[in-house]
Amino acid sequence: MRTQTLSFTTDQSQQMLDITGEIRKTLKESGVTSGVLSVFVPHTTAGLTINENADPNVRKDILSALEAMAPSTAAYLHAEGNSHAHIKASLVGSSVRVFVETGQLMLGTWQGIFLCEFDGPRTRNVLVRITPS
Amino acid sequence: MRTQTLSFTTDQSQQMLDITGEIRKTLKESGVTSGVLSVFVPHTTAGLTINENADPNVRKDILSALEAMAPSTAAYLHAEGNSHAHIKASLVGSSVRVFVETGQLMLGTWQGIFLCEFDGPRTRNVLVRITPS
Amino acid sequence: MRTQTLSFTTDQSQQMLDITGEIRKTLKESGVTSGVLSVFVPHTTAGLTINENADPNVRKDILSALEAMAPSTAAYLHAEGNSHAHIKASLVGSSVRVFVETGQLMLGTWQGIFLCEFDGPRTRNVLVRITPS
Repeated sequence: MRTQTLSFTTDQSQQMLDITGEIRKTLKESGVTSGVLSVFVPHTTAGLTINENADPNVRKDILSALEAMAPSTAAYLHAEGNSHAHIKASLVGSSVRVFVETGQLMLGTWQGIFLCEFDGPRTRNVLVRITPS
Repeated sequence: MRTQTLSFTTDQSQQMLDITGEIRKTLKESGVTSGVLSVFVPHTTAGLTINENADPNVRKDILSALEAMAPSTAAYLHAEGNSHAHIKASLVGSSVRVFVETGQLMLGTWQGIFLCEFDGPRTRNVLVRITPS
Repeated sequence: MRTQTLSFTTDQSQQMLDITGEIRKTLKESGVTSGVLSVFVPHTTAGLTINENADPNVRKDILSALEAMAPSTAAYLHAEGNSHAHIKASLVGSSVRVFVETGQLMLGTWQGIFLCEFDGPRTRNVLVRITPS
């Protein structure tokens, strides 16, 4: 079973959680030194994105922009009250990929991997799989 | 030739078509039990996304939100009248990936794979490729 | 080292640069005839998308729509003045994938691969990795 399942608990209704450290740990434990690492979120009201990990205000601005595009307070057909979260999930996407060379993630200087919580707080699973090559 | 080509006919101008069953069938026929399955749409006015496959209203809400972001009735430079569809295609993206373990797609309980038609109705191709590992 | 690094110089603040030719050249030089080619941008104010490569107005319409969603002139918390670019980067995404068969990219007739510059002009790196299978 190459797929690893990580678990994260979010503490806000909408949040970008930096999970780069845990992904790096998973890569190290795999022993893979060359390939492509993929991350997948098996939820429909959460997503994954790669963006700046320095100034936390970037994450706030991204969440605010998504909220303006799909307001959590707007009227939707779906009766559970979380349609905005489903919309945001499709906008950012359900997976990200990073290349691996010499056992390291080939991320840019300012890049981090973020679990995007759009309907929290909750405990969320994140799947990681590394294709060696 | 590892790439399989599936064909789907949409019957609305904008539509999210659940293609999970056909993708599962393609996986089964491949005989691959472990790896990453990728789906790609070779069109520029259609996309792919993973989202809820239970309440059909979720799909309607997602399409309505995309329509609010890029109205099909707005004025655009591109003279063919389908710029809104190109914009939506880049917002949801041209490919999705799902992990495979013991011959099964590692989708979450509520997740389905959707072909997003933004300029239909049309017959659309969807490419599937499975990288074993 | 399977990862190839390409370099592109953009000449506008916001721009969709067609990099399909350079990607094709990288594929040819790799000698890989069957697999999945992935492209990744190691920057947080640029992205990658696949869309129409025929009428340049499509690109202008996509950039205009993204600008309407995240205006470069709006007020944001992030003090560097480029939050709009971070937001757009997460909307289009940091990577794209194309299948490879008989040494060719399996792109649709009208599809091209675009580096999306959201905070230029700049010199940008684009990483390419091909997983044979």
